[in-house]
Amino acid sequence: MKIDGRPYRTIFPEAGGNAVTVIDQTRLPFAFELKRLASLDDAAVAIRTMVVRGAPLIGVTAAYGLALAMREDASEAGIERAAATLAATRPTAINLRWALDRMAAVLRRAPEAERAALAFTEAASIAEEDVASCRAIGEHGARILAEIAVKKGGPVNVLTHCNAGWLATVDWGTALAPIYVAHDAGVPVHVFVDETRPRNQGAALTAFELNAHGVPHTVIADNAGGHLMQHGQVDVCIVGSDRTTAAGDVCNKIGTYLKALAASDNRIPFYAALPFSTIDWTLADGVRDIPIEERDAREVTHLTGRTDDGAFATVAVVSPGSPVANPAFDVTPARLVTGLITERGVCAATEEGLAGLYPERRKAA
Amino acid sequence: MKIDGRPYRTIFPEAGGNAVTVIDQTRLPFAFELKRLASLDDAAVAIRTMVVRGAPLIGVTAAYGLALAMREDASEAGIERAAATLAATRPTAINLRWALDRMAAVLRRAPEAERAALAFTEAASIAEEDVASCRAIGEHGARILAEIAVKKGGPVNVLTHCNAGWLATVDWGTALAPIYVAHDAGVPVHVFVDETRPRNQGAALTAFELNAHGVPHTVIADNAGGHLMQHGQVDVCIVGSDRTTAAGDVCNKIGTYLKALAASDNRIPFYAALPFSTIDWTLADGVRDIPIEERDAREVTHLTGRTDDGAFATVAVVSPGSPVANPAFDVTPARLVTGLITERGVCAATEEGLAGLYPERRKAA
Repeated sequence: MKIDGRPYRTIFPEAGGNAVTVIDQTRLPFAFELKRLASLDDAAVAIRTMVVRGAPLIGVTAAYGLALAMREDASEAGIERAAATLAATRPTAINLRWALDRMAAVLRRAPEAERAALAFTEAASIAEEDVASCRAIGEHGARILAEIAVKKGGPVNVLTHCNAGWLATVDWGTALAPIYVAHDAGVPVHVFVDETRPRNQGAALTAFELNAHGVPHTVIADNAGGHLMQHGQVDVCIVGSDRTTAAGDVCNKIGTYLKALAASDNRIPFYAALPFSTIDWTLADGVRDIPIEERDAREVTHLTGRTDDGAFATVAVVSPGSPVANPAFDVTPARLVTGLITERGVCAATEEGLAGLYPERRKAA
Repeated sequence: MKIDGRPYRTIFPEAGGNAVTVIDQTRLPFAFELKRLASLDDAAVAIRTMVVRGAPLIGVTAAYGLALAMREDASEAGIERAAATLAATRPTAINLRWALDRMAAVLRRAPEAERAALAFTEAASIAEEDVASCRAIGEHGARILAEIAVKKGGPVNVLTHCNAGWLATVDWGTALAPIYVAHDAGVPVHVFVDETRPRNQGAALTAFELNAHGVPHTVIADNAGGHLMQHGQVDVCIVGSDRTTAAGDVCNKIGTYLKALAASDNRIPFYAALPFSTIDWTLADGVRDIPIEERDAREVTHLTGRTDDGAFATVAVVSPGSPVANPAFDVTPARLVTGLITERGVCAATEEGLAGLYPERRKAA
């Protein structure tokens, strides 16, 4: 999507395959800086420290990370070591494992000497497929928004949580793709953006990219969404997903479950938008079985932002000495999810719904 | 309650009635400072800028504010002007109006010359009654916690939102009073403290006072409570209330409704603790009829905290140029509330429940 009129992707390779460039998302929204990743370690650190984040973008970055590793050691052991290093960076997002498995399978079939070049091509394919997939999600989801606009006779108020926009993918986004496609098609859309504590990806990233693209939006504290839904100010919720079970349970940024409860209580449709690579076909009960990453307490106790004189400062906001817990994701049970928007269409958040869109998986199971 | 071993109340009058002293809650948790309020304006500013906050403490501060005003102008017009000024400071808390109505009624019955002295005595009575009321709430609520501890055979995990502790009242608190009474009686209690964006009263005030009193606790982002409830880590929720309708709808800090939904979804008891002065007997449908204060966007866009070198800094955390909405309260429908803990006991969150505890009100209606 565009920033200052110039089209960007969140990750793009250097010609020659020596490195990839990413947008440093820890510097947004106050500074737009690019970062060059030239090694396996660069890629692993970028994922772990959330220079790049968002399940699809993590997957693509890991794929390029594996490609960069192949330049040093393209042996069988080298593939395994690099994949293990990258897999350990973030435990919840399934796309990471999916991308690494795909890369490793392709590389193992090739002679060692060809692996470095092949890895770059394969990573680029994963990136291109992600763009196409997100664009398709956008088209399927935009139809839902257009229908609401017609029925309502006015702007559609969408509530979203965290950032599942183009900054979380290579381009377009997942949850925000329907919003961009609808907005570009002239469907009036307004987005309530949960700030999404503790890392504030909504206030920092979703607000930034909606603003850059000109989509009307309002930032709110995570606490406010239920109240807005009670008062008819939200027509539909769309969130992304870091892992979705075969039964339709949606693992996403911590706090998503609370919004799904409020949507259900107020009879507001609640959708998760996700590419097929987010689906974990091996799991049914997401609340029980998806491992939830516990992140550093400092994400809760400290906040970094810009002071009035333009400098950056980090401030403590929690009473000193108080212990902190920081689970990064939660799981919304399928019963609270109206539908899943994937690159193949919209389906019920059920085993049957997903099997209908992905019949080849039903055969495999 | 105690800070550094010394017992404090949140508000206490100077001998002679020239002023009252309050704890400046905008400086907590990093600095403990007292502030002297010597005039009507001092009191109004203290309430509006949240130097004092919490429905019961707002009521007591307003009562003292009216008393300070009587020293300047104890005429009928003076009472009305002062009451109007104080009533305009915060629109949602019902205790504010209740305290002003009580003060005005008492003052109007007295000769003008006696009003200044009488007003101080009456404000002090309101403060003493608040302490007794909170202590009684604590005893009734502590029985609930003790029962859970016995049934569970281990520490009771309580989740609370915002600050309804002694800092929100004159002493003891409302939602935290049962926790203090249980803890002091040896019942093992651990508290999950919602940070409570946007003003972070949980992370700043609830954590501070629990820490000062030695009650085990863990601060969490507001987004985390649902996940903890799904995983059996919360035994009971207790929150305060800024206004409770005759039918048991509970208006409280924004985000309370989301926790009540999660508690209901996971069959966890959800209580609101409140003194009778919080009950608005004129309203039944809280979601429809309670006015919700919309506060300054800057509370969402900016955060003030302490830097590592001990200075205070204010940082922007929202993408520049993005609009913000900041509703300060929401209403939890009575159907989601297991019970109300008042100074008279515990009752169902229904008209019948409240009428059972306050039969004199049933007669009046």
